[in-house]
Parts: sequence; C-alpha cells; structure tokens
Amino acid sequence: MIVVKKTDEMKKKVLAWKKKGKTIGFVPTMGFLHKGHISLIKKARRENDIVAVSIFVNPIQFLPGEDFASYPRDFENDEKVCEREKIDVIFSPAATGIYPEGFSTFVEEKELSLPLCGRNRPGHFRGVTTVVLKLFNIIRPDTAYFGQKDAQQSLVIKKMVKDLDIPVKVKIVPTVRERDGLAMSSRNKYLSGEEREKAPAIYKSLKMAGEMVLKGERNAFKIKKRVEKTINSATGGEIDYIEIVCPVSLEALKRIESGALIAVAVKIGNARLIDNIIVKTPGKGIRKGKS
Amino acid sequence: MIVVKKTDEMKKKVLAWKKKGKTIGFVPTMGFLHKGHISLIKKARRENDIVAVSIFVNPIQFLPGEDFASYPRDFENDEKVCEREKIDVIFSPAATGIYPEGFSTFVEEKELSLPLCGRNRPGHFRGVTTVVLKLFNIIRPDTAYFGQKDAQQSLVIKKMVKDLDIPVKVKIVPTVRERDGLAMSSRNKYLSGEEREKAPAIYKSLKMAGEMVLKGERNAFKIKKRVEKTINSATGGEIDYIEIVCPVSLEALKRIESGALIAVAVKIGNARLIDNIIVKTPGKGIRKGKS
Repeated sequence: MIVVKKTDEMKKKVLAWKKKGKTIGFVPTMGFLHKGHISLIKKARRENDIVAVSIFVNPIQFLPGEDFASYPRDFENDEKVCEREKIDVIFSPAATGIYPEGFSTFVEEKELSLPLCGRNRPGHFRGVTTVVLKLFNIIRPDTAYFGQKDAQQSLVIKKMVKDLDIPVKVKIVPTVRERDGLAMSSRNKYLSGEEREKAPAIYKSLKMAGEMVLKGERNAFKIKKRVEKTINSATGGEIDYIEIVCPVSLEALKRIESGALIAVAVKIGNARLIDNIIVKTPGKGIRKGKS
Repeated sequence: MIVVKKTDEMKKKVLAWKKKGKTIGFVPTMGFLHKGHISLIKKARRENDIVAVSIFVNPIQFLPGEDFASYPRDFENDEKVCEREKIDVIFSPAATGIYPEGFSTFVEEKELSLPLCGRNRPGHFRGVTTVVLKLFNIIRPDTAYFGQKDAQQSLVIKKMVKDLDIPVKVKIVPTVRERDGLAMSSRNKYLSGEEREKAPAIYKSLKMAGEMVLKGERNAFKIKKRVEKTINSATGGEIDYIEIVCPVSLEALKRIESGALIAVAVKIGNARLIDNIIVKTPGKGIRKGKS
C-alpha cells in the first residue's frame, strides 16, 4: 500500500495502472474510518484490480459554523485499516492541493440537492459534487462506492454522473449499523455517553415507521408525526427534518408507496445525525430507482 | 468517416479506440464550419490517431432573445468539410440527447466568466463549460482544440480543466481571418453586404491599437478611446465592450503591459462580433500566460 499526498503523483500512478489495463475501484472518504467505510472498501476490493481510498476532509462541503475544524481525524488508524483491507493506495491531499489559490470552478446539481439536507445546508452538495468530480478525474475509477446512509448524497452523485456523462459506475452500499441500530458515522464520536445511549432511537423510530407501513398505514403525515414524537421523547434532540419522499426525485409523498424513502436528520448534542430507510408495502417489490 | 448521433453509440466507439491505445483529438463546434474550424481540425489531424468533431448548437449557452434559433446550420456542407479533412467521426447529437428531461447539473467557472462577454451574457459561459465537460466525458480526448478568436472562452475552459483536474490537454489555435482582416465566424453570415464591408474596421482598430502600443503609448484609456472612435465612425455598430485586460486574470489594465489582451464585442446589424489581439511592447517577449 502506498500513501500519495500530491495530485500530480496520484495522476501518474493512475496513468500507469490504466496503461496496464487495471480496473480501479474508488472509495472517497473524509477519513476516521469505521465499519461503514470498511464495507465499501471490502466491496471495492472484491470487484477491482486496484483499490484507491481517498481521505480528505473537504472544506467546501462544510458551511460556516459547521464542524469542519472539529471533524474527527485519525490518519494513523485509517492507514492501519486500509493496510489490513489490502487496498493499493490512500490518496490524502492537502486542502491547498485540491483548492489552490484562485480556484473558481464548481459543479452544482440543482434539483435533488435542494430538499432534505440541502434546505439547511445550502452549498453543501455543491461542495460534495465539486470534490467528487475532481477526485473522479484524478483517480479515474471504473467504479466508485458510496453508502446508503448518505442517501441524498448518493442520489445527487448518481445524478451528476448521469447528467455529465462521467465514465464512472456508482454503486451504493447498504448502511452498516452498530448492534443497537445506530448508523455508523464518524460524527457519532461527538456524542456524550448519555447521548450515545439515546441515539439508537432514531433508527428505532424509522423501523417503527416501516412496520406501520407494513401494517397498512399509508398516510405520510401520520407516520412522520409518530416518528417525530418517538425521536423527541427518546432523544430530546433537535429535529432538522423527517421526510417521506420519492426515492428517485426526492419529492415529498403524501401517500406512502413501496420503495419510499423515509429520511431524518436530528441534532443530538453536537452531533447532527442522519439516517434513512426504504419502506416496503406488503406484496410488492421494492422500487428499483435507488441503485 | 462516421456520423454518430447517439451519445451511447459515441461512448462505445470511444471505448473501442481507447482499448486499442489510440490518441483522440477533439474539435468541439457549433457547425457551419469555416476556415477557423478547419485550422483547428487540421491541427488535430496532424497530432492524433483519431479526430472527432462535434457539431452541436448548444441551447444552454444562448440567452433568451439571443440567436439560438437563427444560428446558421448547414450539416451537409459540414459533412463534406470533415470528409475532406479526413476526420474519423462527427458527433452530432440531438439537444434532447445532451439535455434529457430533468437535466439538472451544471459546471460554472466563477471568475474569468464574469467580465467581457460575461457581463452582458450572464449564464453564457455556464452553458459553455457544462457542454464542454459533457463532450469531454463522452469523447474522452487526449487533446481538445479551441480558437483564440474566442479568447475568453478559451481561458474559461482552460481554467475549468485545471480546477477540475480534467485529463484533457487544451490547445488554443490562432484566429483565422478573411483577407480583409475580419475574424472568421459563423455569425458573419448575419451581415448584410454593406455591413460586411464595414466589419473589417473592428480588426483594423485593434491593429491600430497594437501599433499605438508599439510606438510607446501605455495609457489604456487613451487606446480604448481611439478604438472606440474608429469602430464607431467606420461601422456605426453598437459597441458592447472594448477592454484591455491581463491575459491571465482578465482584470482590466490601466497601464498596458506586454501580452495584454485587447478584446472587443460589437453588434453590427444582427451580428454580435467579437475579436481580440495580444499586444507586444518593443523589446519584450509576449507573456506566456495565454497557452
């Protein structure tokens, strides 16, 4: 395994692999790797000749006042994880390597980026699409792997890839959870012991919503109210949104359909946590729009 | 030579060429090919195994009320020109092939796009960068060729390529002119006989400005006033701008430096014509920032 910090050096390595006809799998991360990342990495490892993992806390996807400075970093452990998973290269550029002085070009998806996390984090997805396109152009992967936990991010990236004809296959990998159901996230680190005990209620409320649908409830408003009540009473967190949306357009649904995405964002203490499930209705298959 | 209209078919051809290790030269055009385009095509032909020319009048780089509908088109002649120049493929997609329903991702350069043509054509360069990135991703050229006549466009595209790490080399090719100096442009077709006779005054005024600099004039304001007076009296056209700018940042210069770009846009009748020169001062080399 090699660690590359310079963009030009990374491009040279990529060119050499391309010339040899190697397939490249790519897992973009902000580091502080957990089992969710490892699940992406393992899949990439199974499916490609070369696996590249980027570790880059992307400043332009954080809004002023968000947690860019405090975002957890542990490069030493990340390196161990990548070594253990037998990846070929860690690409960990400096911020000035990705955004040199005078940087002025941005990629913006203008529909799927607007609702849910886009509403309270304007500019966030512009930062994501811009860095992902750059990383795609540097690493030139055949396949890139993203987590379903960041459902909206995955959809925005898939839309960018389709709209801009980017020659990369995007695969979305299921959310990995702690034993108690909490979705793996680097931001879980922000939780105090007490908050950590309350946080699994987010996923429990989503599972409960899924069960309501299975039992026949189709009224999105009623389900959202139940989820809201559960999260409020169990976590005391500040709910950013609870939405039930079409898994393709992210448009809000009044009546639940099979395949609908229930997505939540809740601030518990200093941690803004997101999670989502795709609901099934009895007797119908899950809609295929997601992957 | 083949003509490809479908994006997916084009991508397949490209993949086959890539697998054979062929180099690809790319000349993006809006068709109605003239000697300016041919100069780009000839250079691409000399330098690459495969030459692709796209012919696509890009709707999103025209503002409402501009000449998208009336922009001259002559596919039959374009085909003959490309055949004669021994290119390998014309890519001429439908607008709905490039921008299917629901298209929502745009690329925007936010500094060099603002002055000059950007001032009166907001959104124009966003349309240019978006389509060029898409075409780059479809054709995946080693080298792409653009004309110096569209000086600002060339700079914006080079900036996009640098900022987004796009693996394409961009080459800028000198402006080709009619015998009387008028820069070749598809839009010259809009000129009436009388207007066509007046139009060469644009380049004459730029040459005169270049001579003023050679003779020692360094005051940008004085030179702009002379150019303005000459264009006004000789063409009666409506001047959009006359600017003397740094050829790298496009920032306005008060005092002329060697390598400065003098750029003008003038509306004569229905034709909005642009032209530019890079000035030299005696005894100094031309600044290298341009290419």
